[in-house]
Amino acid sequence: MRGASRRPIDSSVKSSRKGTGTPAEATSAHRLGVCAEPVDIAIPLYDRFTALDAVGPYEVLSRLPGARVTFLAHEPGPVTTDNGMLTLTAESALEDLPRPGLVLVPGGPGARDLLDDEPMLAWIREAHEHSDWTTSVCTGSLLLGAAGVLDGLEATSHWLELETLEGFGARPTGRRVVEQGKVVTSAGVSSGIDMALVLAARIAGEDFAKAVQLMIEYDPEPPFDSGSTDKAAPELVRTIRERVAGFR
Amino acid sequence: MRGASRRPIDSSVKSSRKGTGTPAEATSAHRLGVCAEPVDIAIPLYDRFTALDAVGPYEVLSRLPGARVTFLAHEPGPVTTDNGMLTLTAESALEDLPRPGLVLVPGGPGARDLLDDEPMLAWIREAHEHSDWTTSVCTGSLLLGAAGVLDGLEATSHWLELETLEGFGARPTGRRVVEQGKVVTSAGVSSGIDMALVLAARIAGEDFAKAVQLMIEYDPEPPFDSGSTDKAAPELVRTIRERVAGFR
Repeated sequence: MRGASRRPIDSSVKSSRKGTGTPAEATSAHRLGVCAEPVDIAIPLYDRFTALDAVGPYEVLSRLPGARVTFLAHEPGPVTTDNGMLTLTAESALEDLPRPGLVLVPGGPGARDLLDDEPMLAWIREAHEHSDWTTSVCTGSLLLGAAGVLDGLEATSHWLELETLEGFGARPTGRRVVEQGKVVTSAGVSSGIDMALVLAARIAGEDFAKAVQLMIEYDPEPPFDSGSTDKAAPELVRTIRERVAGFR
Repeated sequence: MRGASRRPIDSSVKSSRKGTGTPAEATSAHRLGVCAEPVDIAIPLYDRFTALDAVGPYEVLSRLPGARVTFLAHEPGPVTTDNGMLTLTAESALEDLPRPGLVLVPGGPGARDLLDDEPMLAWIREAHEHSDWTTSVCTGSLLLGAAGVLDGLEATSHWLELETLEGFGARPTGRRVVEQGKVVTSAGVSSGIDMALVLAARIAGEDFAKAVQLMIEYDPEPPFDSGSTDKAAPELVRTIRERVAGFR
């Protein structure tokens, strides 16, 4: 299990344009002949995680040269998402992959249930100690925080949980992707796609990341401009804050 | 199994702001007290589908008031994605949900293997006959085309497969989301998120769609501007075209 080498974002891999995994042909990048260090990517799942938090970055990172993405859980087997409508399979137990090169912790309402779950937090701590990259999407950052990873660092989370980060010694920021050395956190749910493209550039070079972006045709055209608290109607932001508070 | 009523995009549901499913609390919209017609959403999976094609729209559509998303396959059970690294569970067989209100067909390299698969195509035909919405992401449109749904309509697909649509009597367009009455197709992989927000607005009103956008914090910030053939470097587009052709 070797992690990815970290490189500055502008040192693109020369052969990167050759390594374009294609949705049309299921060719992962290494099958197209790119020679690069393999990247062992671990995505821990848990009951009531949010699917897009995990699957967005997976769709980008799985296309890295030599990438191997493994979905983990306390026990191998089915793991159901926050709304109960979708089940993903965790291929391995946490203990089966203690030292991945890249850790990506997704968020979801279930994250709150694990803030004192020692097996998960110990796994994150051990993985982080040896990782090249320790990352989270949405409220996955609360688990990084609970494991002690964010102490003294800037970090982000879902906008409804930003303040919670302070309890773990982190400095919350509203930026969408927050890089602090090898620790990278991203904002709510869909932000993991942006973070994964940043990571792809760091790991395999900008040209490669651009190729992945083109393959997944990530040229977003949201029909509305309501995706952040800065842009949404203040009344909407207030209404959601009130309603969520009512369910705590 | 009742489908969603179709409404013009500007007739928002008055109570829509109340129905904001929250990743922080796993509250699907109907649990927050919205009264609206239930939406039965069927997403057929198949071997070597592309995960984000299905999970992006699921993350939006599952938050609709009264939404019930069901992942289907020829047989219930595990279905593995294009790169072999992720398995989702199909809860039901195709025949278990013959008339959903909304059909969403994801793409992936496996779609090409089903272009003459009568059980899948017959299911799409029957579902489309009764649906309120028949939709696809990426090369899912090839399956709609093979089922005869796109004859004479404008439609889109992954940029590498746009021309293939002509063989089904469709008129390919490069637009990201293509609405033709109740038939809505979207471009490659990540475009399903944009399409799902358009559908959310049509079904539950713009205010509700904006609330979902905020909850999934969909305020995209791609680190590069390489997500379409118009924007990516011509050399990159050419290289990918050549390489994919080599694998056919």
